Amino acid sequence: MDHAHHHHHVIPPRSGDAFEMKAGQTLTVIDALGAQVADLLAINAADKREMLSSGRTLDYAERIYLTTGDKLYSNRSNVMLEIVEDDVGRHDFLLTPCSEATFRMCYDNEPPHRGCLGNLAAALQPYGIEEDAIPIAFNCFMNVPVDGETGKLKVLPPLSKAGDRIVFVARMDLIIGLTACSAPASNGGSFKPIHYEVR
Amino acid sequence: MDHAHHHHHVIPPRSGDAFEMKAGQTLTVIDALGAQVADLLAINAADKREMLSSGRTLDYAERIYLTTGDKLYSNRSNVMLEIVEDDVGRHDFLLTPCSEATFRMCYDNEPPHRGCLGNLAAALQPYGIEEDAIPIAFNCFMNVPVDGETGKLKVLPPLSKAGDRIVFVARMDLIIGLTACSAPASNGGSFKPIHYEVR
Repeated sequence: MDHAHHHHHVIPPRSGDAFEMKAGQTLTVIDALGAQVADLLAINAADKREMLSSGRTLDYAERIYLTTGDKLYSNRSNVMLEIVEDDVGRHDFLLTPCSEATFRMCYDNEPPHRGCLGNLAAALQPYGIEEDAIPIAFNCFMNVPVDGETGKLKVLPPLSKAGDRIVFVARMDLIIGLTACSAPASNGGSFKPIHYEVR
Repeated sequence: MDHAHHHHHVIPPRSGDAFEMKAGQTLTVIDALGAQVADLLAINAADKREMLSSGRTLDYAERIYLTTGDKLYSNRSNVMLEIVEDDVGRHDFLLTPCSEATFRMCYDNEPPHRGCLGNLAAALQPYGIEEDAIPIAFNCFMNVPVDGETGKLKVLPPLSKAGDRIVFVARMDLIIGLTACSAPASNGGSFKPIHYEVR
């Protein structure tokens, strides 16, 4: 139990974390209370110019919704992570991490917040990753349906229930950035923690 | 006529170009023969860490298909380009520029080609832009319908006919990368030039 506890981490509401994983380790992202998004970034620990790429991943998957069995590719078309379990089946890989500008442009009645972009930049700063270099994150549990006819997209509350999880295997040594998302619409209007485990 | 000719450029099939534009100038991208994709990148000429961002743009547009009146945003949420005319109404902003890896993974019966990524990297190299930093391009005329239920996407032949154009106004001083796309499926199986004008 102590051992398990040692590997269990909690990201407080509207904050972020960064950590390293070795190839072959698993990362479990847990929506402990339900309806909470976690933005996930991956960077090659051996060469930080290699990062997660939504465009490569969607191209190779031929699908915008990813789930168990799907691989997340880098800008160099290498597999960074593979999804091996998924309780929810609805995640977003279209939209960038929310930022202070997101609040200015989409939530002008809310106090501005640095958002997932600011939280990722702060967490990744010790690894030498600049905010401008942060690409589209894999938005675990984020529910962004697209109308195929009109192209309209909506940001709806996540479909995840308390305790739902998504599990990734690292396919290279990685630096990971992970948040408990800060944007009201993405999280059904309330801010919850995100739990994670690395094994 | 000489004056107009001076501003008219032709990008040969399966190649790319880069050039500078001042804020307020217009860029017209012309599919001279029809059914040909052009990958468009924009970089802030005054600070090359600021680049086109599909994720910001789709978030603010709340739509995956962009057309006249839509703005293309940077990773810092500034407007880089605005679409002011569009004969086609179907362009893609989900998939990354095709690359040698795209050929390896999607076209294993074709001779590999460096693709739009290699062409953009070569054209932008004199401006100090590294290949790894090239984000998702705005893929003029690329026809990538998405099934909203399943999330499946397809790369279909462009809907553009000979002479169709899309016109952008620059909202800041920009370095532009532009290609005549090299991927068979994106261009209905044949490779045509892309024409462009800057005024």
